[in-house]
Parts: sequence; C-alpha cells; structure tokens
Amino acid sequence: MKKSYIFTPGPSPVPPEVGIAQVKMVHHRSPDFGEYLDRVLNGLKYVYQTENDVIMFTSSGTGAMEGAIANCFSAGDKVIAFAGGKFGERLVEISNCFGLNCIAIEYEWGENADPAALEKALEENPDTRGVFLTQSETSTGVVNDVEAFARIVARTDALFLVDAISGLGAVDLKTDEWGVDLVVGGSQKALMIPPGLAFVAVSKKAWKAVDTATLPRYYFCFKAAKASQSKTPPETPYTPAITLIQALDVAMSMIKDEGLENVFARHELFARATQAAVEALGLEFVATDRSRAFVTTSVWAPEGIKGGDIVKAMRNDFGMFIAGGQGKLKGKIFRLGHVGYFDRFDITSQLAGLELALKKLGYPVEIGAGVTAALKVLAGE
Amino acid sequence: MKKSYIFTPGPSPVPPEVGIAQVKMVHHRSPDFGEYLDRVLNGLKYVYQTENDVIMFTSSGTGAMEGAIANCFSAGDKVIAFAGGKFGERLVEISNCFGLNCIAIEYEWGENADPAALEKALEENPDTRGVFLTQSETSTGVVNDVEAFARIVARTDALFLVDAISGLGAVDLKTDEWGVDLVVGGSQKALMIPPGLAFVAVSKKAWKAVDTATLPRYYFCFKAAKASQSKTPPETPYTPAITLIQALDVAMSMIKDEGLENVFARHELFARATQAAVEALGLEFVATDRSRAFVTTSVWAPEGIKGGDIVKAMRNDFGMFIAGGQGKLKGKIFRLGHVGYFDRFDITSQLAGLELALKKLGYPVEIGAGVTAALKVLAGE
Repeated sequence: MKKSYIFTPGPSPVPPEVGIAQVKMVHHRSPDFGEYLDRVLNGLKYVYQTENDVIMFTSSGTGAMEGAIANCFSAGDKVIAFAGGKFGERLVEISNCFGLNCIAIEYEWGENADPAALEKALEENPDTRGVFLTQSETSTGVVNDVEAFARIVARTDALFLVDAISGLGAVDLKTDEWGVDLVVGGSQKALMIPPGLAFVAVSKKAWKAVDTATLPRYYFCFKAAKASQSKTPPETPYTPAITLIQALDVAMSMIKDEGLENVFARHELFARATQAAVEALGLEFVATDRSRAFVTTSVWAPEGIKGGDIVKAMRNDFGMFIAGGQGKLKGKIFRLGHVGYFDRFDITSQLAGLELALKKLGYPVEIGAGVTAALKVLAGE
Repeated sequence: MKKSYIFTPGPSPVPPEVGIAQVKMVHHRSPDFGEYLDRVLNGLKYVYQTENDVIMFTSSGTGAMEGAIANCFSAGDKVIAFAGGKFGERLVEISNCFGLNCIAIEYEWGENADPAALEKALEENPDTRGVFLTQSETSTGVVNDVEAFARIVARTDALFLVDAISGLGAVDLKTDEWGVDLVVGGSQKALMIPPGLAFVAVSKKAWKAVDTATLPRYYFCFKAAKASQSKTPPETPYTPAITLIQALDVAMSMIKDEGLENVFARHELFARATQAAVEALGLEFVATDRSRAFVTTSVWAPEGIKGGDIVKAMRNDFGMFIAGGQGKLKGKIFRLGHVGYFDRFDITSQLAGLELALKKLGYPVEIGAGVTAALKVLAGE
C-alpha cells in the first residue's frame, strides 16, 4: 500500500471537498457563479485583512506579480527590490524585463532581508518609486519582517509591493494596518486549492499610481478587473478559471470556519513541531531566523547525501512529495512543507517518512527521535 | 425536475469524466504530471495540425492573445487587424495598448472579413509586420476564411496571427499547410475542459520575430515556456493549473479517439441542424455566410422580443444557458451553442427549449417545427 502525499510548499494538499467542488462547472454569467465570486472576493479581503480591492486573475502567482508591477510603474521608474532567494530574484527579473531602474539588494540565501539596508538605500535614492519584498521566500523558508519594512516605506512616497504568494493565510500580514500597497497572493498555498488563480490587494495609493503608470498591460489590467468585479453580481473581464473559483469558495469557508487567528496559530505550531524534529535529527536549518518561518522548513542535506536523493527516496518509497532546492540551493537542501491543508498527523507522517528515507540513505538516524520531538511540541509539552 | 445545461459557445459543456479528472491533483514535478503534459502537448499539435511548438499558458484565451502580440512585435510596428465583432475589436485593443501602429479594418458585425480588403491594405502598407484575424468571431457566429487570408499574407514578410480560441478543434484550421504563424487557442470551447488554459502555436518565422521583438513580456514569455516544455519530461516555467491539465489529458484522448475529421464533421452537422431549425422557425441569422459558421448560431431576436428575455426564459424555466448578444449586439440577438461536448440530443433539447421559450414570450411558434427540421438533418434526410 502506497498512498500519495503532497507535502511541498505549493502546490499544497487539496482537501477532498475542495477537489470535488471542481467537478460540476457552473456558467460564469450565472447567478450561482456571481454568488461564488462575491463570497470569494469577500473571503479574500478577510484573509488579506484589508478593505482594499483584491483583484483576481486566472494565472500563476507570477502573473499577478507582473500585473502589480505593470499597472503601477513606468519604464525608468526607480525601484528597490530585495533578492535573497529565487522569488526575490523574480521580482528583480520582472522589474528589469519591464525597463524599471531596479536597485537589487541581494542578501544571503537563508538570511532575512535587512530593514537597515532598505533605510540606507532609500536615503541614497530619495527618488525611489517602489520597494519590492518577498514575504515568504519559499526557496529558503525565510519569512521576512513585512511590518518593519512597511514602517520604513511609509516615510516615503514609494509604493510597497509584497510578494505574499506562499505566506498569505499562513503568516500574519496586516495589509491595511501595516499599509502595504500591493500584496500578491496565490491559490495553491495556504488557500488550499489547486494552482491557477492569483490575487493582488491594491491600496488607494497604488490606485493613484495606476492612473499615471504607463507600462503596457491588458490581460492583467487592474482597472478592467475592478470594473468587472464592481458589478452586481461581480464578474471578471475575461472568462475565468470557473472550477477553481468554485473550489476557492469551499476553501474560503473552511478558513472562515477555522478563523484566521487559528489558521496562523496552526501554521506556527506545525512549523515549530517540524523545527523540533529537524533539531532532534541533528540536521541544520537553511533559514537562520525561524521566528516567522512557518511556511516551509528548509534543511541542509547531511554531508554526503544529495537533497534530491532524499526527495526521490520519499517519493519513490512512500509516495510523499517534499521539495528539493531551487536555484543555487539545488541538490544541497530539502524542504518540508506545512502550508495549507495539513493536520498534525501529516506533520508526523512527513517526519516519519523523512526518518526512514535518511536511514536508507545511510544517515545515522535514531528512529523515532524526530517524530517524538515533533509530537512533544504538538502535545504542548 | 430542472437539470442544468451549458449550451453557450464557451465555456462549453464539460464531459463528466473530464470534470472528475480535476479531483485528485498530482504534483507538477511528478512523473505522472510529466506524462500528462507530454500527452497534452502532443495532443495539441494534433488538434492544431502542426509540427510547430504549441506554447501553453495558465490564463484565459485573452492572455495568450496578449502573449502572441507581446512576444513577436515591437512598439510602433505596423499591423493590420480585422474587427467585425467583439473579439476582433480585442485584437485592435491589445495592439493599441502595446503601442503598435494598428490599422483596424472594421467590417459589419455578421459579415465575413474580406480578403480583398487585406490585399488592398497590404498594397497601401507594404511595411506591415503583422496581420491579425479572428477565425471564429464568437460574438456574431461568423467563421472567417483563414486559408484565403493565409495565402495573401504568405506573399509578404508579415506574420499571420489568428485568434482561433473558439474555433480550434471545431472548424478546420491547417496551421502548417496554410502557414499560419501564430494560432491562439483556448481550453473551454471545442477542447471541452473548463476555462483557465490557453495556447499559441508558434511558427519558425514567428520564433525569428521573437528574437528581435522588444515589447516587454515575462509571464507570457514564449522562450521561457519553450525552454520548460522542451525538457524531458516537459515542464512549465511557473506552477500551472495542474487540475485543468489533468482534465485536458482526458479530453484530448476523447478527441483522438473520435478523430479530428469526425470532430469537424460533427460540428458541421450540428450547426447545419441548428441552422435548419432557425429557418423553420422563421428567424433570421446574424451571420450572412454560414458555410463555416459551425461554432455558434447567432440569431436576431424576433421583433418585440429582447434577446436577453429569451436567454433568461431558457435559463430560469429549463436551466439552459445559451448566450445573449455582446457589445453592439447586446439585447438584439441570442446565440445557440454547438461547440465541444454536444451530442445530437443536446441539439434537439436546446431547440426544444428555444421553442418553448419563444412561445412563452409570445412569438408565434409552430411547436416542433424547429426540432423536426433539425432532426431531419441529423437523420440525413
């Protein structure tokens, strides 16, 4: 008997009732669909902790990142982007692709982006129009201090854009209270549905920028999306991924039933349990600061073992999908997931699978040590 | 008892086995997914009748239209776009949005785009870099003569871009034999899956244009997509709509089993049957030339009855979704669908529903006349 487990930090596991919600498609101009979309858009505001518009696109999260940039900036605009992982690098790439004058602040993969570096960069570049930060850098497991960055950006006229694709709904992000202008989210992480939908929360300040920004955008046009979403019932400008919106309606009601605070607490608990197991197994973390690293736990592969071999062993022997390294960390690390639809036994199962895989690959494992350490955290000990 | 029928020309009905294929999501870096994607990409080549690369995006068809333009052209490039309906107008809008020098050739909604008008425009504009045409103009039901246009464009250096979103897999389009450089398709029409995936077939000539085109593109970057799709097993650059690709794998095998020629013949037969019913009911067609109008049958609402009232009556009384008019035809027409997953009894059911709705709205219907006329065509009489 080999079951199938998706334990990657996106796509994350899909609840059966969410999966089934895709089967019977309604028409996107039907009253039923209008009700789904209305509930989903309101649910997104709840998760985003915002009264701002949340714009929805049928695309990967990357599409919404492009949309946030293309709608609010013009060629030559100076922006500061933090790059300490694959997704931070993507912010730089998109900026360069669209002809922004992008100051890339690179930091070590595994470190946190440094608010002091932003202060310095802003002092040196008072004409900065935008600051781009990854909240949860999925490639390293690091979760940056969005609030600290927001305080600094708030002293300037710059727009603050946060890629929260893997962190949204897993780690606290108070869009309005902290004053984040553009928050990009995706469907296949804490929102618990398959990939294919992406979102951007757009502040009033960002909408003002939309009016003067000259980069070309059509499919990702915020104004077109807002005009359609503002109708009663709400619509989308182009035919959307209807079955995914049906799925999101179910997932949203699960999140609302659990309550956002409880959802955050669950993510923190499962991360702490996983971290305890990693320590008990004598392994080393990639993320040096784990105080907010609640989306994925990145771990250095032990000496003499390739990260990919651990991934393959867990997949081939147990049907468990965990993630390997990306970019410059490829082959060197593995990543344990705990974002979205996980319960405590998924956490212990994942760690049990890890112990068995490590033993098979020759790493000296005291079998049960990781699982026990995690279970103690879960038991509140 | 009221069932639910999607008879719109997109999204079109989803076969139950296709709907169910979305339930259990695989991981997009799993061997299973690689097999799905490989089969789907090969299946698309079959439907497109091409050896060219077919690039896949997670987006609405409009996203792929933008991608085709943004990857192959530069600001200021002169293009000729035919606009005789909502989707032709969209080609003009995207061109203008991206700063192309777009010569819009408007033609009457309901008429066919005229190859002679293209010849004249090309003579007057020998520096034309692209010709944009809608194959199946879903807003009017007109299907243009892509082959005739292709012959004319072939005499020039211009790229020929065809929006085949609603026609692909319904009406013959020989991408390679006719030499169409960019063919845009969508998932929610003849391909029988829910909306959310879009495609572009890219000729060698178009790839050369990609090398020099300077419009910004990131999410819709052809080169990035090709690099990922060329891997073994194939991948996508960003997390794709996995469950829709699973669905497309099932739908593709249905199309292959039926055979493309038979699929085309079925669409033609059902269109002819629907046309016969419309004539028998004494109604007037929007499309003046119906020799290729096999995707949707657009009909003028009878004097004194709003198109939307017919749509609403069929929806509210029978759970049948047909389409009303778009743009300048809003309220004036209704559109009967027969693209994708329709069998002959869907055709007669739709017409039966139409007869009942028309009678209710006060139109003098000889009940059974439309259904009988259609059935005679289906019976081969």
